[in-house]
Amino acid sequence: MLAEVSTPPVVILVRPQLAENIGMCARAMMNFGLVEMRLVAPRDGWPRKGAHQAASGAGSILETARLFETTREAVRDLNRVYATTARERGQMKPVVTAEEAADDMIGLADARAGVLFGPERMGLSNDDVALADRVLSFPVNPGFRSVNLAQAVLLVGYEWWKRASGGRAPMAPGRTPRPATREHVLSFVDFVEAAMDKTGFFYPLEKRPIMARNLRNIWHRLDMSEQDVQTLRGVFTSLVNALRSEVRPPPPVDGKDGDPSA
Amino acid sequence: MLAEVSTPPVVILVRPQLAENIGMCARAMMNFGLVEMRLVAPRDGWPRKGAHQAASGAGSILETARLFETTREAVRDLNRVYATTARERGQMKPVVTAEEAADDMIGLADARAGVLFGPERMGLSNDDVALADRVLSFPVNPGFRSVNLAQAVLLVGYEWWKRASGGRAPMAPGRTPRPATREHVLSFVDFVEAAMDKTGFFYPLEKRPIMARNLRNIWHRLDMSEQDVQTLRGVFTSLVNALRSEVRPPPPVDGKDGDPSA
Repeated sequence: MLAEVSTPPVVILVRPQLAENIGMCARAMMNFGLVEMRLVAPRDGWPRKGAHQAASGAGSILETARLFETTREAVRDLNRVYATTARERGQMKPVVTAEEAADDMIGLADARAGVLFGPERMGLSNDDVALADRVLSFPVNPGFRSVNLAQAVLLVGYEWWKRASGGRAPMAPGRTPRPATREHVLSFVDFVEAAMDKTGFFYPLEKRPIMARNLRNIWHRLDMSEQDVQTLRGVFTSLVNALRSEVRPPPPVDGKDGDPSA
Repeated sequence: MLAEVSTPPVVILVRPQLAENIGMCARAMMNFGLVEMRLVAPRDGWPRKGAHQAASGAGSILETARLFETTREAVRDLNRVYATTARERGQMKPVVTAEEAADDMIGLADARAGVLFGPERMGLSNDDVALADRVLSFPVNPGFRSVNLAQAVLLVGYEWWKRASGGRAPMAPGRTPRPATREHVLSFVDFVEAAMDKTGFFYPLEKRPIMARNLRNIWHRLDMSEQDVQTLRGVFTSLVNALRSEVRPPPPVDGKDGDPSA
């Protein structure tokens, strides 16, 4: 379904070093619906042990990953290429955030976008960056810019998925509890006010209207569900009943009418 | 500076299992300006070897992390608490995305927010979630929801930082090259058209206006800088010069006037 709206960007790992990081990139991709990984000259060859375990269930992405000798070969069929980098390159390319890149990718429709990610320690070379149309940079703490490889992939995927899916939380709709009817809420409010009248809560009496209004505002602010109303009504009923037994006449001297639980 | 606008949320790792993951959470936090980590009953105790190496320079966050026995103790002083979870909990709490939570946190000003993250495999318990005001859930591929612990922390930090910092890329402003003056661009366009007139490019002649306009549109779409104009002008000059030597009269038979590089 999503593919009809926008083709997910290709993730291109250029000279990645650790198999575990390649696996974690696959996992991050799958979290956000990216499917195609390309590897340019992985330092230790490919395939490598350790990648699958780190992929944690996203092994299918590793199995279909394509291997290239050069970055140029890896981007040949793509219509738009982004180079992720945290440093200035002086290449005079437009710099976009992951969010802006996602908007841009969605606009490409079925044209294909790819994102270049450099090796763990040194990032992309200037020659790699030169192959890109745009530089992609994350808004990040300027005092600590080094983002882990899989986390950079994650942020690109996350922003793309937010745009492609509408960005809603994955919970089923209707999670917000259905509010109680006003009738139930008001009946509860009246019940509580009557109880408070009995306890002498509204004192002095000339302040009763404003005190009652404040109390009502609290109840309404709760956005109560039917269940909430029932629960709170139970709480007050229980207090009122306990109160009644408190203020009832003292038991006879032999104590036979006393409440053993009191 | 940022602290005056909004206090970063506290990251609360509940019963985390692997020291390496705790370290990677610290790194993700520092990438996005989060400073306070709390640990609730880490499985293998605390401090632990391996955390610092994974933190990759964010060790200060680990050193100041506070240890708690229960989640309840860890959230006591917070004004708003979010529970990250990918599963339905049936707790009838409002569900927000990381983006919505970030907006909400920024609105809290100096009141303190905290985010609960569950153990790697099983996530938060229902009792942990019950301590929260809101459920925080990521828009994620419904077929692959399991987000790595440090990556969940990263997304919360990323969205908070985007709101708190204005979300711009960290490059210095003015990275977009200064466009060339229209005068330079038009002078270049004229130069190219004159050259093309000489080559017979504009053929048939009645199509010259539309062909010239199409070509001009291409040049303008390039958003050329002064440097770009100079470079392209050099390219055409070089072609035009080569062309002149091509079409000059053939050399005398002894070849002495010939161009040895032709």
